[in-house]
Amino acid sequence: MLAPPLRQQSLGAGRVSQPPCGRRTRTRTRSVTMLLHRAVIPHLRQACRLKSAPSRLYIRACSTDDSLQPQCPSLAFSGDNSSTGGWKVMGTLLGLGAVLAYHDHRCRATQESPHVYTREEVRSHSSPETRIWVTLGCEVFDVTEFVDLHPGGPSKLMLAAGGPLEPFWALYAVHNQPHVREMLAQYKIGELSPEDKVTSTLKTSDPYIDDPVRHPALKVNSQRPFNAEPPPELLTENYITPNPIFFTRNHLPVPNLDPETYRLHVVGPPGGQSLCLSLDDLYKFPKHEITVTLQCAGNRRSEMTQFKEVRGLEWNIGAISTARWAGARLCDVLAKAGHQLCETEAHVCFEGLDSDPTGTAYGASIPLARAMDPEAEVLLAYEMNGQPLPRDHGFPVRVVVPGVVGARHVKWLGKVSVEPEESYSHWQRRDYKGFSPSVDWDTVDFDSAPSIQELPVQSAITEPKDGETVQSGEVTIKGYAWSGGGRAVVRVDVSLDGGLTWHVAELDGEEQRPRKAWAWRLWQLQAPVPAGRKELNIVCKAIDDSYNVQPDTVAPIWNLRGVLSNAWHRVHVHVAP
Amino acid sequence: MLAPPLRQQSLGAGRVSQPPCGRRTRTRTRSVTMLLHRAVIPHLRQACRLKSAPSRLYIRACSTDDSLQPQCPSLAFSGDNSSTGGWKVMGTLLGLGAVLAYHDHRCRATQESPHVYTREEVRSHSSPETRIWVTLGCEVFDVTEFVDLHPGGPSKLMLAAGGPLEPFWALYAVHNQPHVREMLAQYKIGELSPEDKVTSTLKTSDPYIDDPVRHPALKVNSQRPFNAEPPPELLTENYITPNPIFFTRNHLPVPNLDPETYRLHVVGPPGGQSLCLSLDDLYKFPKHEITVTLQCAGNRRSEMTQFKEVRGLEWNIGAISTARWAGARLCDVLAKAGHQLCETEAHVCFEGLDSDPTGTAYGASIPLARAMDPEAEVLLAYEMNGQPLPRDHGFPVRVVVPGVVGARHVKWLGKVSVEPEESYSHWQRRDYKGFSPSVDWDTVDFDSAPSIQELPVQSAITEPKDGETVQSGEVTIKGYAWSGGGRAVVRVDVSLDGGLTWHVAELDGEEQRPRKAWAWRLWQLQAPVPAGRKELNIVCKAIDDSYNVQPDTVAPIWNLRGVLSNAWHRVHVHVAP
Repeated sequence: MLAPPLRQQSLGAGRVSQPPCGRRTRTRTRSVTMLLHRAVIPHLRQACRLKSAPSRLYIRACSTDDSLQPQCPSLAFSGDNSSTGGWKVMGTLLGLGAVLAYHDHRCRATQESPHVYTREEVRSHSSPETRIWVTLGCEVFDVTEFVDLHPGGPSKLMLAAGGPLEPFWALYAVHNQPHVREMLAQYKIGELSPEDKVTSTLKTSDPYIDDPVRHPALKVNSQRPFNAEPPPELLTENYITPNPIFFTRNHLPVPNLDPETYRLHVVGPPGGQSLCLSLDDLYKFPKHEITVTLQCAGNRRSEMTQFKEVRGLEWNIGAISTARWAGARLCDVLAKAGHQLCETEAHVCFEGLDSDPTGTAYGASIPLARAMDPEAEVLLAYEMNGQPLPRDHGFPVRVVVPGVVGARHVKWLGKVSVEPEESYSHWQRRDYKGFSPSVDWDTVDFDSAPSIQELPVQSAITEPKDGETVQSGEVTIKGYAWSGGGRAVVRVDVSLDGGLTWHVAELDGEEQRPRKAWAWRLWQLQAPVPAGRKELNIVCKAIDDSYNVQPDTVAPIWNLRGVLSNAWHRVHVHVAP
Repeated sequence: MLAPPLRQQSLGAGRVSQPPCGRRTRTRTRSVTMLLHRAVIPHLRQACRLKSAPSRLYIRACSTDDSLQPQCPSLAFSGDNSSTGGWKVMGTLLGLGAVLAYHDHRCRATQESPHVYTREEVRSHSSPETRIWVTLGCEVFDVTEFVDLHPGGPSKLMLAAGGPLEPFWALYAVHNQPHVREMLAQYKIGELSPEDKVTSTLKTSDPYIDDPVRHPALKVNSQRPFNAEPPPELLTENYITPNPIFFTRNHLPVPNLDPETYRLHVVGPPGGQSLCLSLDDLYKFPKHEITVTLQCAGNRRSEMTQFKEVRGLEWNIGAISTARWAGARLCDVLAKAGHQLCETEAHVCFEGLDSDPTGTAYGASIPLARAMDPEAEVLLAYEMNGQPLPRDHGFPVRVVVPGVVGARHVKWLGKVSVEPEESYSHWQRRDYKGFSPSVDWDTVDFDSAPSIQELPVQSAITEPKDGETVQSGEVTIKGYAWSGGGRAVVRVDVSLDGGLTWHVAELDGEEQRPRKAWAWRLWQLQAPVPAGRKELNIVCKAIDDSYNVQPDTVAPIWNLRGVLSNAWHRVHVHVAP
């Protein structure tokens, strides 16, 4: 049996669908090399231990950009007998010895005859007591030992216990990566019986089929779930980001909700009355309108990736946008349901109506103190820039928590409850937390870090773009700056020489109320280009009204999930002669 | 007339009274060199313009450490005919040509016969319309053009209009520096008439004579006003700093107040009733007790000075301490006086009973929203660690504003009022603000920056000390970490290799309530010393619950007043062989 081919050309073809960008290309190439390395080395180490090997192995860039996958079927290894030309290239990359050893291992592994199990047998292994089995394609895996190591949390993996992984992988396309399949391969115990193979390999229907049509200007980082950002040059074109290009961060398929039958369930306090609110009911609360900037915790993650690989979507600087939101104040709705501030710490938990095939909804929580504080202006928003919320942004109702990370602004809001503990959602407890650069996936203890709520001070340069050539004489630099917790940006410093000397940029946009600076400031600087300079290392850093500043460099704030990337933003440009 | 001598020896003698410290000595030497340079160059430029030159010129280190002055009278140039040996040394430092030119200028200047004015004439020049004259010794200066350039603000200088500067310089000893006298010399217009000379040169009585006795462990940065910090090794010995070594930052002499006759004046709202509260009246409000860390905005200024000269006291890492404070909540007292939160922005202004000779008190303000928020826990404190406030810390009553810069915790509190604007105090409007590194004293616009209220995240290493030798095997590192605004410190990262790799330190001290982390966390790390290492570059950085971090380096946050110094703290140690 011959090794599967790696068609170098198709790798290039895959990228054609992406906007051309020098930095991205370099990153991709490096990531692919890294993943090839990852794909091979564990196999060499575990060759003796393995009973079998995965029958298909994808070589993909380390991004959850799933737009790659449908366009590039040829990126997949298939276990057929086609040409070994690709392997030669791979050999050049990795060292021929390693490749041959891997090839040899694959040949031996598939020669062994595997154990065979029925679907019924698999189904009976769905708890730690009976051991936990799952299937992928026709293969059976015992993942009991892996459950606690699952980066998405044990509970997520347990949803698939005793059954096929496909429905979940269809939702969380991040799994379709070679190192994930490698990890899984270690746990293979056999194959499904021939009569069960047919059902298990049936295609799951596409849960994203009903997602809305999006604006073509958006730079797509992942199709399923849909995650996209406006290009930098559009980002600061307007103080208020137009709805169609507002960055979109979905965790699941977009639900298609009927405004007539939509109901928001607000759980009352013990012994109290719960509310079941229609849209018309919500409209009866005083309408509150505020300008708020939303930012994803993963904004600027791509800069962390350049230092060291992380797990997460490759956001550039555009996972941030600003809108005028209108809706009912959460404090008014909670008060109507009979809730009061209590002495002990409590949390308001939100559940979305977006859910995975088992019905598990997206969820998050914020402290009750923030929710009940009229000055914190937390909204149950039904309007975005004067329009009903677009479907991608939570139609008909989403939470807006000014000054707080985007992940808590739950969209397609279905349920609100007050609990003694934070939401038990994966996204509250096993994601969206910051760690020391020294923490890796083997040592991470998610309980040791607080969930991200307020975000740190942030800024970025939107013009000129990295690698651009600017005219000599004078250069115009533009960007945005924002800080969490309602802290106003009080200054943006810009350097043309990598941070040795600084200019103070001019702040545009609305002056905001003290302690309620929920929205960004756009800024610009017109600065003379020092005579004779052939290039500029442009840097920006913002300062907020607590005089917090951005850190100089990204490496010391690197973390395994690539969140909270707020080092000085740097852009290198050439000066036209 | 010969040039005044510079006795190099006395410079050394002056330093003997300071704790021996290599770094300090280097800084001083550099500062002195810089000031000599400053003292000479303007004279060369202005030699033709000047009518006269100052008859005495002090050569002092650029520190407001006034402990130097009384011990080192020999540091002063006097206009006598003694040896020119000192000038030769100065010549070596600065270049003989410059020195000789200066010498020549001084000789010519003093040969001219000056205009002579009576004290009465001087007194009649006390407004911009009549022009603004002041005297120093027997010299008369027209400072009309300088008033707006006065680093302490025009209003401070106007206090002396028409009269002698001495009473003010006795209070603000920062003026006794050569570059200040140089600046003044440019404005000399003549001398006092012989009969007025006597009165003007009379010694002002020492306003600091009644200051309390202090603990000998304190490291004194300035005697008058008294400013001192505990040494690092004592700083983190206790979670609660003992009163006698709590850092002291006074701006004026310590008032000696009688608790029996003490009254706090709380101005009521328009049309309302003002309060005049005795200590017993204050005790009748509910007693509120909280642990709060106070930090001076100038903490760690000495690290900024190492990069580039600033104006301010040379604080090391000890301008921070923690106490248990008890008192009445400001919101309760304001409510009693009939104050309410208003829609428009307002400020609570505090006046101390410490004042300069004109009766101008220390003053500061905080936003009314913070003052009225019971959750912000602003106190009118009368107890510190279970004792009445020590005199140095505001006896009998001071303000404690948790999470906010020390400068707003007004001591010896005399008056509280609610105003539409921030306090007009010099310390609110012309000090305690942050600026870009590009801003210098020629370009600074104090109105362009907000007054410092909440402070940014901070941490420092208290053990081992810089330059120490540690044992191989294992090293124990200790320090403190704190953040403003009630934001909790969630992590401290420590590096032994200058920031390349990191360890997570163990946090000691009280877990604090959410959004009310008013006090520091002490931390420690026991880490193996990598084999073969001869030195360690120990670095620490803290992260707060908004995930703000400390900047990597000090240069990009340098500012002309040397405030907000919160870059990574660095300590270099040797490893014993």
